[in-house]
Amino acid sequence: MPQLRRDPIVGRWIVIDSDHPKEPKDFPKEDQTPSHAAVCPFCPQRESRTPPELDAVRPNGSGPNTSDWQIRTIPNKFPALVHEEPMEKEGIGMFDVISGYGAHEVVIETPDHNRQMADLTIQELVLVLNQYQRRYKALASDARLKYIVIFKNFGPSAGATIEHSHSQVIALPMVPKTVLEEIEGAEHYHLSHGACVFCTMLAQEYQDKDRLISENNSFVSFCPFVPRYAFETWMMPKAHQAHFADLNEQGVHDLASGLLDTLNRIKKCLSNPSYNFYLHTSPINYGRPNCYHWHIEIIPKLTRSIGFEWGTGLHIVPTFPNEAARYLRDAR
Amino acid sequence: MPQLRRDPIVGRWIVIDSDHPKEPKDFPKEDQTPSHAAVCPFCPQRESRTPPELDAVRPNGSGPNTSDWQIRTIPNKFPALVHEEPMEKEGIGMFDVISGYGAHEVVIETPDHNRQMADLTIQELVLVLNQYQRRYKALASDARLKYIVIFKNFGPSAGATIEHSHSQVIALPMVPKTVLEEIEGAEHYHLSHGACVFCTMLAQEYQDKDRLISENNSFVSFCPFVPRYAFETWMMPKAHQAHFADLNEQGVHDLASGLLDTLNRIKKCLSNPSYNFYLHTSPINYGRPNCYHWHIEIIPKLTRSIGFEWGTGLHIVPTFPNEAARYLRDAR
Repeated sequence: MPQLRRDPIVGRWIVIDSDHPKEPKDFPKEDQTPSHAAVCPFCPQRESRTPPELDAVRPNGSGPNTSDWQIRTIPNKFPALVHEEPMEKEGIGMFDVISGYGAHEVVIETPDHNRQMADLTIQELVLVLNQYQRRYKALASDARLKYIVIFKNFGPSAGATIEHSHSQVIALPMVPKTVLEEIEGAEHYHLSHGACVFCTMLAQEYQDKDRLISENNSFVSFCPFVPRYAFETWMMPKAHQAHFADLNEQGVHDLASGLLDTLNRIKKCLSNPSYNFYLHTSPINYGRPNCYHWHIEIIPKLTRSIGFEWGTGLHIVPTFPNEAARYLRDAR
Repeated sequence: MPQLRRDPIVGRWIVIDSDHPKEPKDFPKEDQTPSHAAVCPFCPQRESRTPPELDAVRPNGSGPNTSDWQIRTIPNKFPALVHEEPMEKEGIGMFDVISGYGAHEVVIETPDHNRQMADLTIQELVLVLNQYQRRYKALASDARLKYIVIFKNFGPSAGATIEHSHSQVIALPMVPKTVLEEIEGAEHYHLSHGACVFCTMLAQEYQDKDRLISENNSFVSFCPFVPRYAFETWMMPKAHQAHFADLNEQGVHDLASGLLDTLNRIKKCLSNPSYNFYLHTSPINYGRPNCYHWHIEIIPKLTRSIGFEWGTGLHIVPTFPNEAARYLRDAR
């Protein structure tokens, strides 16, 4: 019968719809074959079609905005937030308004239009993660910014409008709601239990075992007990760490290795689905305690919404996470 | 430049992307022409293809599950929650689990496959709203249930899988997260300001005027100052009322009249878009104060998500609500 489960971090209830359980074969398949648009603005030789680059990996020492690059970070051509404006606050009646100060950047992960993130080598993905850390640290030096989100949309169902493999970085003058709830939930748990809620969760994952997917020295992948989506997968540093920027060289290597392993399991198990991932980390330029535990949430886009969760926040999930983890463990 | 706005009820920040403002003509159009599937299970003569009806409007006194009906309420054939099971609670390590006790029903709003809700007459929509209230009261008599959500998906982008016009009713043993946040926000505002936050918002809407769409004796439609989606529209009783079930006969008539007016403005202005609506009301079987103010939230499905709000809760909205309201005021 259906089961209601409550997330211990933010208090969200979800429903596992066990009467109509879905296996990988039950989800609609999506064709991710690149159409290789003749006008892809992220391909080499088209550097002039993007705003001037902010950073890049150029192994042969080529100049900015020329074509011999391995990774390229540019401002989003249609940014949701802009960096140049002074930040102004005002009240309009009962409402608070701030000018939309911030940054919106795009990390082009490879010059090759036909390779997805899951197709990169460990060393290539290390360079992408290094680029994430470099942009993170550069943006964090602006004291007016309070939060940085690194995320990726892969495939049309996940909202990708350009198929050439890329990630996005958004810097904000405040902490967005979903992340703030997680941070406050972790603080509350720490105050009331004297422990990190994520570390406690990891301990239970190791005890229960059946939701684990894979692990290496520094990272573990698992399907959380209270998912919002079928086959939702989290990757977490095994040791407590509040800030993504603090991940050292060995940690970056292990994250690249673990992320590649996890993305390829999802690709194989679920026929190369569209997905989103989000890196949730601690706020920047902020005096809060270090009780948050940064991690990556990967959401394969498998089901059409029933429209219910948009209006109520109650997600109905058609696959038990231990079943999802079993399929992902077996896919390799 | 972009503007960050903070919702005064739940504290959610959103971004208005004013650098790339979207008008009705800028959104992709969707074809809602009914395909009139030969096997629509909601059409008359196919009553045996649905579970036995729970309630119906049968003006000619026909028997249950025969074909001469005007409105028909049935259990969802694939319910997310089931009514028959005993409710059990347990703790699994750090997690809370309850068996999925509840109800999931479908209100078929018209026997005519080719008529949308916006095509109904006021009197026909009054019967639909009466049916909502009857099911609401019937389900509320079960003391184990704590919340009832009435919602509608219209069109494929809004998650509708059957095109024959229908709404859904879900009854839950707890209050879902998004609604609970609104209720707690309203309570907090009442304690700290001594007033209903929704009544205060309405007073500001009347003062600012430029986000109002239309009104009648009992209801007003407006585009809220802090929307999550372009052309998001709220309908609210003008007088403070905590429970939808308390709406009287005149109120039901005015709601039908106002909802038809609003849905037809959305249909005309935005080329018959897919949409969701949610009726947010107070919990049932619960001792909380009556400071919540029930209302309907209508969300036209106009934009593909950028994937960002799923992982962070920060919505990026491409249309200022006063601009949206102007288009909707002019569409009639």
